[in-house]
Amino acid sequence: MSPGAIAPCRWHGDASGFLEVLDQTRLPNEERWLRCESDDDVVAAIRRLSVRGAPAIGIAAAYGCVLAARRASPGPADGFRERLAHGFDALEASRPTAINLAGAITRMRAIVDAADDAGPNPIGARLLEEADAIRDEEAAACDAMAAFGAALLPDPCTVVTHCHTGALAAGGIGTAVGVIVRAHRDGKTVHAFVDETRPLLQGARITAFELGRLGVPATLICDSAAAGVLASGTVDAVLVGADRIAANGDVANKVGTLGLAVLANAFSVPFYVVAPTSTIDPATPTGAAIPIEERARDEVVGPFALPRGVGVRNPAFDVTPAARIAAIVTDRGVLQAPFTPAIRRALGAASHTG
Amino acid sequence: MSPGAIAPCRWHGDASGFLEVLDQTRLPNEERWLRCESDDDVVAAIRRLSVRGAPAIGIAAAYGCVLAARRASPGPADGFRERLAHGFDALEASRPTAINLAGAITRMRAIVDAADDAGPNPIGARLLEEADAIRDEEAAACDAMAAFGAALLPDPCTVVTHCHTGALAAGGIGTAVGVIVRAHRDGKTVHAFVDETRPLLQGARITAFELGRLGVPATLICDSAAAGVLASGTVDAVLVGADRIAANGDVANKVGTLGLAVLANAFSVPFYVVAPTSTIDPATPTGAAIPIEERARDEVVGPFALPRGVGVRNPAFDVTPAARIAAIVTDRGVLQAPFTPAIRRALGAASHTG
Repeated sequence: MSPGAIAPCRWHGDASGFLEVLDQTRLPNEERWLRCESDDDVVAAIRRLSVRGAPAIGIAAAYGCVLAARRASPGPADGFRERLAHGFDALEASRPTAINLAGAITRMRAIVDAADDAGPNPIGARLLEEADAIRDEEAAACDAMAAFGAALLPDPCTVVTHCHTGALAAGGIGTAVGVIVRAHRDGKTVHAFVDETRPLLQGARITAFELGRLGVPATLICDSAAAGVLASGTVDAVLVGADRIAANGDVANKVGTLGLAVLANAFSVPFYVVAPTSTIDPATPTGAAIPIEERARDEVVGPFALPRGVGVRNPAFDVTPAARIAAIVTDRGVLQAPFTPAIRRALGAASHTG
Repeated sequence: MSPGAIAPCRWHGDASGFLEVLDQTRLPNEERWLRCESDDDVVAAIRRLSVRGAPAIGIAAAYGCVLAARRASPGPADGFRERLAHGFDALEASRPTAINLAGAITRMRAIVDAADDAGPNPIGARLLEEADAIRDEEAAACDAMAAFGAALLPDPCTVVTHCHTGALAAGGIGTAVGVIVRAHRDGKTVHAFVDETRPLLQGARITAFELGRLGVPATLICDSAAAGVLASGTVDAVLVGADRIAANGDVANKVGTLGLAVLANAFSVPFYVVAPTSTIDPATPTGAAIPIEERARDEVVGPFALPRGVGVRNPAFDVTPAARIAAIVTDRGVLQAPFTPAIRRALGAASHTG
């Protein structure tokens, strides 16, 4: 992993070990690691956003599968695979939008299927190997994206970013934040405006924390202040991550991404999405088919009561149409419009090399 | 005043009385009235946003001038006007962007000037009359705007609004919220999406409070969720207030207004500014000349520490160019492009009728 990167989770021991997840809900005030002894613990950690960010969710869920195997081991041998499948299903259902989660579980299911009639112990060991592989592949993908993306940025440059897409979201140097960090390490003069990212303030709490720690100059703004920053004519690029990319290049990402894309277009600033090919879902034809998670109203309302009759809508994500995106920076290169063939080629390259 | 409207402040007694200001920073959890015994108390209440909203600031500052006269009364008679001017200056400087503040102080200065060599007591009484007049004129302007604006809305209709522009901001039924409330009272089926409005959450705390109290169906959203709502094709209008309108129709309003305007344009939703003519400043040629208040970083950062090297930018307002505005709804009619002559005509009408 790149120097200075923190991992969102870490496995301890062999297949009978346990997973530790950094509780991102407590950052930056407290660096508390949650010990996950079962797949249920991992499901809970994903649901409450202790681990978040599409690639990081995939990695944590993969290790969750190892814990599922450990928990499914006792009991009648002929029920093992059924118990295992039950655990995998719960992990896959823990959040709906990020496709890395489903992608990781699909890989783990393939390991189980390929293990023929192997018993719990060899299957657990093979699952752990696969989880480690997913983690390492995501870290390598981050490095590749960071190099491709940093090459797009002028020197000096000012960027705007949204939510958090750094090491804790991605398992390596990060996706959009990884590009910023790489440009800074390459010696470019980079300044990042960081959207605070309501309702859960991942930008203010985690992106600011990571950039500050790495010495990248950054300025925190309210999400609604990005318009004025972009209108000022001083911004060279908007960089965001993705939770799922459809086959046509439509991008689901943290709520607020669509608004940033519209603003970037209006003020002629290139809008870049930075995401590994593991975030592309060729089975999702367009953004309209991406399930958008609606989260609890308490995330928005906070410490005061709303009057009767006032509702809350709290979508965690929105969909940015491909037409608003200048380029999608992946681990296999920079994709540009027309995105459908560009994505098909990138994923084809995946199946040949991967 | 319209039924159901709450006033942002209320004067008690004659010119030797005092002002009570509803502390909007404590809404909706607590309805606490601050007793202002001096103009300094009013300056403090304006600075800390206990009273906010361009017309409401103007009204509070006008009553602050009465308190300045009371405080300036003791002491050598020939220093009275100097002490008074000092108090007026401090009130005028309490916040920079809303022009209603400067407008109210200008009117109060004219009362002092017109009082020739009158002593403190008659001047205080005349200042109180003028403050009452400003309050009543703003309430009447709200009623006029509400009627003009409600006529623009279809039935049924869905609107998006930002910050808070209701009774507590305007002294009457409100500006943008006044239009929504009026349409609802006219029997139209209205549904309002309310931006929470970071950093101080005037939408979540005050607009939701007022609309809920008046029975207007409303849904609270994070500011960054407005893009998805507008993209959904279900919104008929965006309605916002203004803190200052330049002679060419550029509008300074709560940070986030520019972003909403760009989104409304992108998704072909009419973007309406609702503001009394007292918010138009013919001496400000364009938005570029409007001073934008930068407020404390603590408003954004909240309860967690930012790492060293991470800055904060916290502009309270942004400027929306006239070209992005479908119409400016004033108490003297609905102004449309080209705005420069439309504004000139509206203000001309003012000087004839006012």
